Amino acid sequence: MKNVGILGATGAVGREMLKVLAERNFPVGKLRLFASARSAGNKLPFRGKEIEVEEATENSFDGLDIVLGATKNDLAKKFAPHIVKAGALFIDNSSAFRLNDDVPLIVPEINAKDAFGHKGIIANPNCSTIITFVAVNAINKLSKITAMVASTYQATSGAGAGGPVELAEQMRAQVEGGEIKSEVFPHRIIGNVIPQIGSFTENGYTTEEMKMQNEGRKIMRLPDLKVTCTCVRVPVVRSHSISVTVYTEEKLDLAAVKNAIAAEKGCRLYDDTEKGLYPMPILTSDQDLVFVGRIRRDIANENGIALWCCGDQIRKGAATNAVQIAELFF
Amino acid sequence: MKNVGILGATGAVGREMLKVLAERNFPVGKLRLFASARSAGNKLPFRGKEIEVEEATENSFDGLDIVLGATKNDLAKKFAPHIVKAGALFIDNSSAFRLNDDVPLIVPEINAKDAFGHKGIIANPNCSTIITFVAVNAINKLSKITAMVASTYQATSGAGAGGPVELAEQMRAQVEGGEIKSEVFPHRIIGNVIPQIGSFTENGYTTEEMKMQNEGRKIMRLPDLKVTCTCVRVPVVRSHSISVTVYTEEKLDLAAVKNAIAAEKGCRLYDDTEKGLYPMPILTSDQDLVFVGRIRRDIANENGIALWCCGDQIRKGAATNAVQIAELFF
Repeated sequence: MKNVGILGATGAVGREMLKVLAERNFPVGKLRLFASARSAGNKLPFRGKEIEVEEATENSFDGLDIVLGATKNDLAKKFAPHIVKAGALFIDNSSAFRLNDDVPLIVPEINAKDAFGHKGIIANPNCSTIITFVAVNAINKLSKITAMVASTYQATSGAGAGGPVELAEQMRAQVEGGEIKSEVFPHRIIGNVIPQIGSFTENGYTTEEMKMQNEGRKIMRLPDLKVTCTCVRVPVVRSHSISVTVYTEEKLDLAAVKNAIAAEKGCRLYDDTEKGLYPMPILTSDQDLVFVGRIRRDIANENGIALWCCGDQIRKGAATNAVQIAELFF
Repeated sequence: MKNVGILGATGAVGREMLKVLAERNFPVGKLRLFASARSAGNKLPFRGKEIEVEEATENSFDGLDIVLGATKNDLAKKFAPHIVKAGALFIDNSSAFRLNDDVPLIVPEINAKDAFGHKGIIANPNCSTIITFVAVNAINKLSKITAMVASTYQATSGAGAGGPVELAEQMRAQVEGGEIKSEVFPHRIIGNVIPQIGSFTENGYTTEEMKMQNEGRKIMRLPDLKVTCTCVRVPVVRSHSISVTVYTEEKLDLAAVKNAIAAEKGCRLYDDTEKGLYPMPILTSDQDLVFVGRIRRDIANENGIALWCCGDQIRKGAATNAVQIAELFF
């Protein structure tokens, strides 16, 4: 049995971690839930019991084996040294440590082995990055991926628990004629799409867009991988979709690509255009597989494959991936 | 003055044509509105008068100078010979004639001159195709475009007047707890995105996706242009958005690209990431310019430029473009 803590337990990802730990029968000994002082005293259900949320402090982590992090970067940075010092393994969903050389960045289906080189912290990658690379990992095994062009269709829940609440409120205002207020998103999201997630960097790409390349390089051990990415928020509750074109060193056989994706761990080949079957957010929510479809040859480059993938970014893109990392250690 | 007919006057595009003719002070002499027998007898407003809709028949077109077509392919094919025989110019928004060698395919900002080679029929291109090529035309003038990768975010009104009605009904059902019915779209569109527009072709691309390349080649006079396109329906009422990566023969200066787009007819450069300005459907609806932003260098290919464009596909993508074609002839 492992003593488990969840840091940021009351957020969208924290709550899902709790759910996934129970679902996957993770051998939880002691379970402690941490959040800000504001949320302390609340209770969250776990395996039929109500667990009280505690305020996270620097001394919270004694006796824990694993702490799953579901906070923003500042809090992850603040508590990480104390978690490590207490002897717990910190599996962190923030982006604070992802590109640190001594922090493994893990998608268990892709690079589980790298996890064992940790020095107390293992990082969980960005949600769109996890979904996209689970989808293309089988292709990389057939021939090394050199570059990708990706355009995302990201759900509102990627912005935290407040995202779907804002979507629902705007939807109600739209139907009932009320005022449409935007607080979580920089613009209205109902009836709109917003080509900005994260903040803009010097090269004109957003922080979110650069994660696809920079985290992808590390996860895939492809240091020269180049990814041109456009991240777009769409009025969907849950599950990110990504339109990807993948370029490989050699020209691949399309049937071989489909077979490889069908056989890949964490993937479900969902690609039958004759029957109108292709991945969609409504199909992939509240489960852990990345659905891959619309697989076809790139038209401009014979070494390119175009595809469309969808996955639940709160589960496989965050909570499930973190619990899968924890499972590597028992 | 020109005597004008609108074939398919009661649909979303037909009604918008009527509005655009009035707005642009098109010199309309006689105006006749044609639709199916079912819609005959209805009245539509034009410049303060109510015009009665007539049933379209093979003998409807005598005395007309221009017929604007806003029907599906079968009706366009059925009536085209009779329109031409009656001596009227048929400006057709269907895809029936777009790739015919003796039918010009026109976006006035790009290839107005080609219109004058017509033999009675001029075709209006696909909506996403118009918006995308208005956005990238300035780039092609700086250096020939060789290839593109495009992912679209297409509004429900692209499926005709029934699209936004279905979106609104599903939204109401979602808010009020009713049953969500899908008739216009193959799956629910509220809270979802659907990676299928049109029907699937042998190469795995949809008919809609192949239009971007095949119509683009003709409009741009780029017979070797290659376009890998993914067309996706999103829960937006109006205005299509497109994430595009454009590859050119030479490496371009980014500032020069922005200046060229700013100076391009039909375009509005809307690209200030410091101020959070980028095109969105809510900004571009019910007007005629294509907004272009998020302009940045492709990461994988130094001859590539990534950008994001939005435009009202019922106006510039259909009705306005057709009326602009008509304006070339008076």
